[in-house]
Amino acid sequence: MTSLARTETAAHDRPDLSPSVAARQACRTGMAATTAGVANGFVQGNLAILPEKLASAFHRFCQLNPKPCPIIGMSDVGDPRIPALGLDLDIRTDLPRYRVWRDGELVDEPTDIMAHWRDDLVAFVIGCSYSFEEALLADGLPIRHIEQNIRVPMYRTNVACKPAGPFAGPMVVSMRPFKPADAIRAVQVTSRFPSVHGAPVHIGHPNSIGIADINKPDYGDAVPVGADELPVFWACGVTPQSVIAAAKVPFAITHSPGLMLVTDLLNKDLAVL
Amino acid sequence: MTSLARTETAAHDRPDLSPSVAARQACRTGMAATTAGVANGFVQGNLAILPEKLASAFHRFCQLNPKPCPIIGMSDVGDPRIPALGLDLDIRTDLPRYRVWRDGELVDEPTDIMAHWRDDLVAFVIGCSYSFEEALLADGLPIRHIEQNIRVPMYRTNVACKPAGPFAGPMVVSMRPFKPADAIRAVQVTSRFPSVHGAPVHIGHPNSIGIADINKPDYGDAVPVGADELPVFWACGVTPQSVIAAAKVPFAITHSPGLMLVTDLLNKDLAVL
Repeated sequence: MTSLARTETAAHDRPDLSPSVAARQACRTGMAATTAGVANGFVQGNLAILPEKLASAFHRFCQLNPKPCPIIGMSDVGDPRIPALGLDLDIRTDLPRYRVWRDGELVDEPTDIMAHWRDDLVAFVIGCSYSFEEALLADGLPIRHIEQNIRVPMYRTNVACKPAGPFAGPMVVSMRPFKPADAIRAVQVTSRFPSVHGAPVHIGHPNSIGIADINKPDYGDAVPVGADELPVFWACGVTPQSVIAAAKVPFAITHSPGLMLVTDLLNKDLAVL
Repeated sequence: MTSLARTETAAHDRPDLSPSVAARQACRTGMAATTAGVANGFVQGNLAILPEKLASAFHRFCQLNPKPCPIIGMSDVGDPRIPALGLDLDIRTDLPRYRVWRDGELVDEPTDIMAHWRDDLVAFVIGCSYSFEEALLADGLPIRHIEQNIRVPMYRTNVACKPAGPFAGPMVVSMRPFKPADAIRAVQVTSRFPSVHGAPVHIGHPNSIGIADINKPDYGDAVPVGADELPVFWACGVTPQSVIAAAKVPFAITHSPGLMLVTDLLNKDLAVL
């Protein structure tokens, strides 16, 4: 840990600290709020930590379901670092808040997981919609829940993920309403970012993916959909968390929804074209 | 005309004639039927011929409205050839059937325009949906009107084209119904082909672009839209013909709808990525 400690000290001394390094630094020293709007331009990620015994099945699950579960980084077994996402990154301390699961039950929501860390744990970082929302906003497309300063509405669908080992369950989607021409543009813009959920998975007919009432999301907050708008649905990074809870695995750790890992990757670098 | 005559003779002697050259050859010798399904893989085009006095305003109109009017070729003034679209191409003879317009009235529908040709005419060839339909089919997306062997339904919208000189009027769109996930894929596939109308201009709410009854197209044939489908609308090459008729210009020539110019360009080469 000597090198990590040295980085932290150096960081404190530098006012020109990168916003992503500063965000992780803040988490280490007690920041426990949403990371929405933090370190704009930098990729944020969903977190899933599993014992090695379950990690390969979960890795396969992500491989089979890349739209809800695009992996943007992984740790080695027992190693809390993921240098590809940040040289100083320590997955045990660098998120604002965590969720600790035992047998499918949420047992703790600590601000660090030093006390829960084990030598057999593997950390997965999964792409997040904040990245493609930045691209939508940069393109001039209005995002309703951001305008209203609430959470994006999310829904469990009747679309089954491809199962792997104990991991199975429905895809969770997030919804953003758009005027039709903007919906078409949103398909184009988000298609460039497959590692952060990519193009929408559905548009216009919530019933046909098992959403009974668009005004009653399963997670997040409801947003109004205008009569001249279409609800547009993207695969959501809540899916892996939902699947891990449903699998009732003996032990797992995830991030607290909306309180993500801030990485050193740049959103713009995720564009495939 | 010596070189054209020589090409024709050579073509007649060759059984391995390119399908596009063979199609134009057939037009020259009397073929007057739809070009749908002819010379698969080759780009077909809408035709608009105008006197030089009006051609620059029409060119500006196309420039201002690239989605309905993407120009894929132009002749020099008074020159019936467009070598970039086919070395042997003669715009006066190489379409199955033409429409001759005087003061906004359709006055003749000949199979060649030798008798109407003038030294001041300029020919515009405008991209056509056959090209992007080939890409949709190649991607496995079903196209209703092709399955039913009828014409695509087309509608005048309340979306005004940007005017230029005497040319003004509403955008005409074509409609293809898709299941939501296929509609998203259709946006991706057709976005690659901006020179043949590109991405859709509307999806899902026909009323908001001035279409009162989806079952009553202004041109072509009605196709059913399922309760779990979305009508997807593309800008249509009928727009320039509609605008030319509305402008009541003294003289113009267009193709007969569905009976297009077959060029030597390949649809696949129009993909921008």
